[in-house]
Amino acid sequence: MWSVLILIILSVVAYLITDELIPKLKDLFIKAGLFGVDLCKTSTNKVPEAIGVVSGCVFLVTSFLFIPIVFGYGLIDRQHFPHNEFAEFLAALLSICCMLLLGFADDVLDLRWRYKLLLPTIASLPLLVVYYVNFNSTTFVIPIPLRQWLGTSLNIGLLYYIYMGMLAVFCTNAINILAGINGLEVGQSVVIALSIILFDISELRGDQYKAHMFSLYIMIPYLATTLALLKHNWYPSKVFVGDTFCYVSGMTFAVVGILGHFSKTVLLFFIPQVINFLYSVPQLFHIIPCPRHRLPKHRAETDLLMASRTILVKKEISSLQKFVLQVLSLLHLVDRTEDGDSITINNMTLINLFLIKFGPMSEIKLTMILLIFQFLCTGIAFLIRYPMASYFYDS
Amino acid sequence: MWSVLILIILSVVAYLITDELIPKLKDLFIKAGLFGVDLCKTSTNKVPEAIGVVSGCVFLVTSFLFIPIVFGYGLIDRQHFPHNEFAEFLAALLSICCMLLLGFADDVLDLRWRYKLLLPTIASLPLLVVYYVNFNSTTFVIPIPLRQWLGTSLNIGLLYYIYMGMLAVFCTNAINILAGINGLEVGQSVVIALSIILFDISELRGDQYKAHMFSLYIMIPYLATTLALLKHNWYPSKVFVGDTFCYVSGMTFAVVGILGHFSKTVLLFFIPQVINFLYSVPQLFHIIPCPRHRLPKHRAETDLLMASRTILVKKEISSLQKFVLQVLSLLHLVDRTEDGDSITINNMTLINLFLIKFGPMSEIKLTMILLIFQFLCTGIAFLIRYPMASYFYDS
Repeated sequence: MWSVLILIILSVVAYLITDELIPKLKDLFIKAGLFGVDLCKTSTNKVPEAIGVVSGCVFLVTSFLFIPIVFGYGLIDRQHFPHNEFAEFLAALLSICCMLLLGFADDVLDLRWRYKLLLPTIASLPLLVVYYVNFNSTTFVIPIPLRQWLGTSLNIGLLYYIYMGMLAVFCTNAINILAGINGLEVGQSVVIALSIILFDISELRGDQYKAHMFSLYIMIPYLATTLALLKHNWYPSKVFVGDTFCYVSGMTFAVVGILGHFSKTVLLFFIPQVINFLYSVPQLFHIIPCPRHRLPKHRAETDLLMASRTILVKKEISSLQKFVLQVLSLLHLVDRTEDGDSITINNMTLINLFLIKFGPMSEIKLTMILLIFQFLCTGIAFLIRYPMASYFYDS
Repeated sequence: MWSVLILIILSVVAYLITDELIPKLKDLFIKAGLFGVDLCKTSTNKVPEAIGVVSGCVFLVTSFLFIPIVFGYGLIDRQHFPHNEFAEFLAALLSICCMLLLGFADDVLDLRWRYKLLLPTIASLPLLVVYYVNFNSTTFVIPIPLRQWLGTSLNIGLLYYIYMGMLAVFCTNAINILAGINGLEVGQSVVIALSIILFDISELRGDQYKAHMFSLYIMIPYLATTLALLKHNWYPSKVFVGDTFCYVSGMTFAVVGILGHFSKTVLLFFIPQVINFLYSVPQLFHIIPCPRHRLPKHRAETDLLMASRTILVKKEISSLQKFVLQVLSLLHLVDRTEDGDSITINNMTLINLFLIKFGPMSEIKLTMILLIFQFLCTGIAFLIRYPMASYFYDS
């Protein structure tokens, strides 16, 4: 337990260093051409981009310094050194480091989509090997109502590894597409990190004690450095976090989910991201036209945000598009206006959905509402994980 | 042994992919502002910088894909999985991945010197922990002539770890300062890699069999991707490799030296870099004025390179500077000219030393001579390591 205490102290120092470094390094980023203009503001100031690489590096360095501490008891008694746990920790850091590199390369070079899907898959390979070696449990426990057909448990073997690889890809990209307004990427990551830490603490007395300690070892320094980043990224943003941050965060959550054996619970904490992804599918797969940016439109006169929109020309509408539009209208999920030649609908992101449901609002209010929604979803996740689970599974 | 065969096939594929990717990604780098102008040419074309990140990434990905193959026999028999060797491999890749990230960040952001010294030290931490856990041999065998005073062996404990940490810092920076003409950074790295592979093969029958197999697992994909890079970086360079490449290479050599228990032999392969470093010390520590670039001067009329120079004002010369100049002149290591007020000497790099000793020459000839010197030093290293070692140590 004292190792967690030392980690908390290390993490506080990491917070302070990140908080100190970010303003110091800002100009370096702008000089290197890594900056953007905040599209939801009237000012056209240069805001440094990809600052997530700073918090990510401090997070990694903190974890490195923590290695001799967490494995200290094994270092004294070298005969019983927990090589497998050490390999787990290294594999976790390796996957995170890879995503930090890929994210930063993406911010600098603007990589194509295929690399964004391919590289996280490969980066999760060490993780999957560690999982195979240390656990290799690929068995799903079947919920009680389904057991008469499927039996008590189902071993899905290789499919489980494909699922875990896809989880890494999903997590790294899911945060990246629920983004675009000040503080949202970092805010949602903080909520997810807090949820995982809460879940870890509540499971510390269970038989998966070690797995949840491992998760805490990763999440505590992550949370500390991310909070420092949030301070500078919160409305009005003095820095942007870039793909770097989204990738590192997603991989960190995937890593603790996979190696902590609670990947399904991690997915429960991603409910808003899953909703946003599913809602985005028609545009991501170009069934509905997808402009380069789908973030809300800023109206300078009122300083409020409104849903941004995409236009379909009536003559060119395919039957698939017609079907998708009908379904979405039926579910009241799009705000649709028509004139003679064209149909205008909102861009399909969770952010725009909130704007069409609750009306135009200020950027800070929109961020707050989305983060409250993320918190509510964590509540739902705990509800599914604990009270409801007992109806479906033997405790 | 079949694992090495598969690795060679993987590495050939890695070579082909790197060779294919570099020209494809060139424009992406130029668009991102990552380019330089070749100062030893008359043309002012934009040459993409930091392309080492491409070969580095392919090298890492190849190593990831190799994990299930090299640990395959352990995967089948999970009871005897070699967790310690697996942790070694992961720690090696983690340190290399960190340097890839740092190098790329340095190329993009132009980091300060203190980060360049601090980060490799921290990046080598997982490596040192693995060393401690798996071997913890911090004993030097004393050469026979000294044994009457110091005994057969000397345990230097913590100092050995400091030495290994410093080795990582030295290797990552040593290649970076013996650079500046087309193909030299990559060329010297290829020679060092070939030397290490040769040494590994010659030791495969010894009792350190496993350590040298480990070294081969890292060096073979490194060599393949580096050769592909050399093809594009060779005179006249179509791409520059950047700090990224130098850092990755240095860390890779340090990693195999430390985990393969032949760090002193690796240092022997670094003789030209050690000479260059020692010769550079007066300028690196600003005893002698050090201009931003010390690379040779290109004379457009003759297309030949000449030693570049630095100027000392006679009135301002300190006694330390006078002493350094006297020693260097005595050893015939500087080309010195004087006029009324000032002393002009060549910049103190190995490259300029060759130019003052052999006269002005073309860039390609200079690269070739320096690489031949690197090869000769490998010969000397093997001479020290094998025939001469038997005079100093029991075999």
